[in-house]
Amino acid sequence: MTRQQLVDSIFAKKSFLCVGLDTDIQLLPQCLKAKTDAGFEFNKNIIDATVAFATSIKINTAFYECDGLKGWDLLERTAHYIKQNYPEIFLIADAKRGDIGNTSKMYARAFLQNLPFDAITVAPYMGADSVKPFLEFENKWVIVLALTSNSGASDFQTLTLHDSQKKLCHQVLETAVKWGTANNMMFVTGATRAEMLSQIREIIPHHFLLVPGVGAQGGSLSEVVKHAYTKDCGLLVNSSRGIIYASGGDDYASKAAAEAEKLQQQMMELMGL
Amino acid sequence: MTRQQLVDSIFAKKSFLCVGLDTDIQLLPQCLKAKTDAGFEFNKNIIDATVAFATSIKINTAFYECDGLKGWDLLERTAHYIKQNYPEIFLIADAKRGDIGNTSKMYARAFLQNLPFDAITVAPYMGADSVKPFLEFENKWVIVLALTSNSGASDFQTLTLHDSQKKLCHQVLETAVKWGTANNMMFVTGATRAEMLSQIREIIPHHFLLVPGVGAQGGSLSEVVKHAYTKDCGLLVNSSRGIIYASGGDDYASKAAAEAEKLQQQMMELMGL
Repeated sequence: MTRQQLVDSIFAKKSFLCVGLDTDIQLLPQCLKAKTDAGFEFNKNIIDATVAFATSIKINTAFYECDGLKGWDLLERTAHYIKQNYPEIFLIADAKRGDIGNTSKMYARAFLQNLPFDAITVAPYMGADSVKPFLEFENKWVIVLALTSNSGASDFQTLTLHDSQKKLCHQVLETAVKWGTANNMMFVTGATRAEMLSQIREIIPHHFLLVPGVGAQGGSLSEVVKHAYTKDCGLLVNSSRGIIYASGGDDYASKAAAEAEKLQQQMMELMGL
Repeated sequence: MTRQQLVDSIFAKKSFLCVGLDTDIQLLPQCLKAKTDAGFEFNKNIIDATVAFATSIKINTAFYECDGLKGWDLLERTAHYIKQNYPEIFLIADAKRGDIGNTSKMYARAFLQNLPFDAITVAPYMGADSVKPFLEFENKWVIVLALTSNSGASDFQTLTLHDSQKKLCHQVLETAVKWGTANNMMFVTGATRAEMLSQIREIIPHHFLLVPGVGAQGGSLSEVVKHAYTKDCGLLVNSSRGIIYASGGDDYASKAAAEAEKLQQQMMELMGL
């Protein structure tokens, strides 16, 4: 997907919501538990119910790998279902991969070539040659971790470097932007540290940010918009548990839709549309 | 596997070799290409041929994910085959995972609970809560990236921090050792930077190091031993491509065995045994 297609989709839907499919088989609604293909039915119903309010869907690979072969099958079928039925959805593999060049190339093929993902999240610790192989696919995106939403982000990401006097996460932004462009690279910046988003915007005024941490993790949507919204929107804000587990009952899909719509309505208002 | 079991196995086999199964389906020997289960036959034959010379096997998940469902199936069957037939082998999932706590917990379950791996490699960028969930399984190990063997390691890992005046990779060691013990945590330190291993040994004198970069990447085994060998050995040195692709012909397994034996003989000599 091109940047223009993504921006058009955001303004058409008046939403920059990313729905996170962190589908934990053990947490499925009771009404699905006896079904043979419960995971797919859950994902399908959540997708169909929320897709009107979202521009993006993020599949968190951990929740699928955890269920082994069956889980990987669910991941693949879910990705294909989304792209076949809703090609306008910006589909993210939240995989946090990254390895030496020849290995990253295999991860890149796995998600960006052999599966229909538009983007993959990548960890920056191993540097340029661990990220660049993901940038070799036309109209596909790399989303590099910069400042994450979890408490451990302060262990290394916010430490100051000696030479540049910059925080590590800012150095990651400055170095990584040179590997790609604002048309094939985004950055993960957590909503739980919204006050730091202004500084991040100074370094990368044009890049899209994938912002987790709204919802279960406590981040504020209006704060994110205040500090990081651009004329092209420039944001994909993710909510996972707050949407997909809005209800554990038979009404899980309609409740998920209601939560997604609530966020979309807030986004529309914050966008001034 | 306990640390004592690993150390006993190293001294019994007079080897601290880890064979890396970076099995690229497109690079299989010609004689296997027509077979229906070529990947498994290749892995099985490589394992059977090299296991006498190795204490550890490392499965690089990227090369399996790249082949989708079939690849994940191969990963699982290979892991089970190794542990069923060679339970003394220290089996590593080279997966470079790491995410927020509730997600890392799912990755940990995937590899350390639902599959028979003894250890998994983990990226440190997201800090404590991204690594700790992997430490909750008895006699299982986390192998944290510290100083990797690739060129991109110099992008961030070797930058100096302002407050501690330490390199980031040294700070990672100092911080991460507090999350676990020398009985459940190792570190990845590349053989291509052997001169830096002495400094690393000052910070972590007792922890095992997983050392990639010998072979195709150009690192020297004797330099690694000189700078980082301990009385418990303290090393697992990996070779992947140099062993499994030693020959592209019918003799791929015997040639792999010869390469593994060559490394084992060098190791035995360097161990003074």
